[in-house]
Amino acid sequence: MVQGTDPETGKFVRSPFHFTDRITADGADGWPVEPGRYRLVVSRACPWASRALVVRRLLGLEAALPVAVADPIQDEKSWRFTLDPGDVDPVLGIRYLAEAYAKADPTYDGGISVPAIVDVPSGKVVTNDVPRITLDLETEWTAHQRPGAPDLYPEPLRDEIDAVNARVYADVNAAVYEAGFATTQSAYDDAYRRLFTCLDELSERLADRRYLVGDTITEADIRLFTTLVRFDPVYHGHFKCNRHKLAELPVLWAYARDLFQTPGFGDTVDFDHIKRHYYVVHGNVNPTGIVPNGPVLAEWATPHGREELGGRPFGDGAPPGPPPPAEVLPPQW
Amino acid sequence: MVQGTDPETGKFVRSPFHFTDRITADGADGWPVEPGRYRLVVSRACPWASRALVVRRLLGLEAALPVAVADPIQDEKSWRFTLDPGDVDPVLGIRYLAEAYAKADPTYDGGISVPAIVDVPSGKVVTNDVPRITLDLETEWTAHQRPGAPDLYPEPLRDEIDAVNARVYADVNAAVYEAGFATTQSAYDDAYRRLFTCLDELSERLADRRYLVGDTITEADIRLFTTLVRFDPVYHGHFKCNRHKLAELPVLWAYARDLFQTPGFGDTVDFDHIKRHYYVVHGNVNPTGIVPNGPVLAEWATPHGREELGGRPFGDGAPPGPPPPAEVLPPQW
Repeated sequence: MVQGTDPETGKFVRSPFHFTDRITADGADGWPVEPGRYRLVVSRACPWASRALVVRRLLGLEAALPVAVADPIQDEKSWRFTLDPGDVDPVLGIRYLAEAYAKADPTYDGGISVPAIVDVPSGKVVTNDVPRITLDLETEWTAHQRPGAPDLYPEPLRDEIDAVNARVYADVNAAVYEAGFATTQSAYDDAYRRLFTCLDELSERLADRRYLVGDTITEADIRLFTTLVRFDPVYHGHFKCNRHKLAELPVLWAYARDLFQTPGFGDTVDFDHIKRHYYVVHGNVNPTGIVPNGPVLAEWATPHGREELGGRPFGDGAPPGPPPPAEVLPPQW
Repeated sequence: MVQGTDPETGKFVRSPFHFTDRITADGADGWPVEPGRYRLVVSRACPWASRALVVRRLLGLEAALPVAVADPIQDEKSWRFTLDPGDVDPVLGIRYLAEAYAKADPTYDGGISVPAIVDVPSGKVVTNDVPRITLDLETEWTAHQRPGAPDLYPEPLRDEIDAVNARVYADVNAAVYEAGFATTQSAYDDAYRRLFTCLDELSERLADRRYLVGDTITEADIRLFTTLVRFDPVYHGHFKCNRHKLAELPVLWAYARDLFQTPGFGDTVDFDHIKRHYYVVHGNVNPTGIVPNGPVLAEWATPHGREELGGRPFGDGAPPGPPPPAEVLPPQW
């Protein structure tokens, strides 16, 4: 996502998304769903992009919507394809995601953010609209989802999911950044207070139910997960979200491990990308660029005991198989 | 203590102490022990100075060796008496500790460190020799210690205490700084590894014995305590000592709480001074100067269960009474 700290208030604010066309089954915006036509550009470091990685895996859209993984370390031109041979994305033929932004709007001079979906034939970015991207994968790409794909945004639960998402966005997903990038004590204090108030409420909500909404995994769980998985490796120290570690909040810690150990979640998580991105890129927070060695990541594999709460992780569906060979990550600890 | 990071290796190193005269019962260095003659200058933020605060309390030397408490926030002239009326220490009549350093050696241009003991009549600093200061309070000031003062450096245990102190200095007291001030990944990695290896060994050592050496509180416990009490509020996040929080290391956490709850330890600890000092002063580590709200300090008051291990905290002596009224700290949470 795009970012900046208000010099007056010291409060960190986000810019609106600039590219908000939708890729839909009916192609109303001029971008019809079509397998192989688009490219999902992500960083595995980024919590917003990681939502799309999890959804794509759970729904089995890996072949229909191939992925380009950017280097976790941006340079002054932002996200770049320096993990690929020749430092060029092999399909888009570009070195920087910014090139796809410029192709879509040569006048654009805002931030460059992931996730972004690029139309391969034209090389133009179609959307960088974070909340819309996953909802559209869930509801518009249904024809190309795998057999047994779960319904991550069930019609009867949408109001409740939307309400949970709105709260989790404001007081968890965004609040950790607002704490970490605050340049005044009051802006930090406010974000910290909202964050831990919300985490306490979520702990209570999840104490006797396995998932946030209904009894299956939904979009709401995915949005909470991508922040929780970064909490102890990054947000606790780097962003000063240090009332407690996630590992000290028993309900949320077990909930996060449960999801991590569910196919489609943990297999998208690259802790090396996550840690190097935050600690190296944010020179305004960590001038030395030293990447901490802790915490002990193997603790993510410990038993969580949440099966006792029941729930049907994939509803009437089934878990996804392993990731495509090209997307299998190295051992994480 | 005095400090600097080697630009070649990125390793943080300490300068030797410049003022190493001793205040002794026989006055061999020209500085005889004399109640009321000297002034102990400390910052409550500083772990090295805090050793002297604990020892002075345990031995009842408050009246014999009055204290000057510097502002936790140094300016470009270092430690200053801005907590006192008119920003001047009422006894020494100086604004900066550096003035006492200059009086003792007008050619000195090194760092200004606490603890320092100043001779009031001449205004000259006598010693800033951290390890010697507490040992001399214990062994040279005996005539002025309170009735029931413990023996913190018992003759038959000195070799063992010295050996433990040497290890704890290198791999705990100094290692946290070496991790936090490292400017190369390898210097950080080395300090982190030594720190947690040593903490694991100390956990093992303390699992079935209440104190580090013998069955009473000694100088060794005091030197470990002043680092442990800063661990979760500062070193875990600010200095990237984040394999675990102290609160996640059950033996050391109980040991630290046991000492904290012992008269003479916790009553010298000012968490506000500690947190503000590190987070505000170290602009090279924390450019925003934001002070984290966590962790939850009230957890220091929770039961520790270490009484079950036996031990005689004060040996044949007794705990100190409350601090002098002028030294009573505000509630810490």
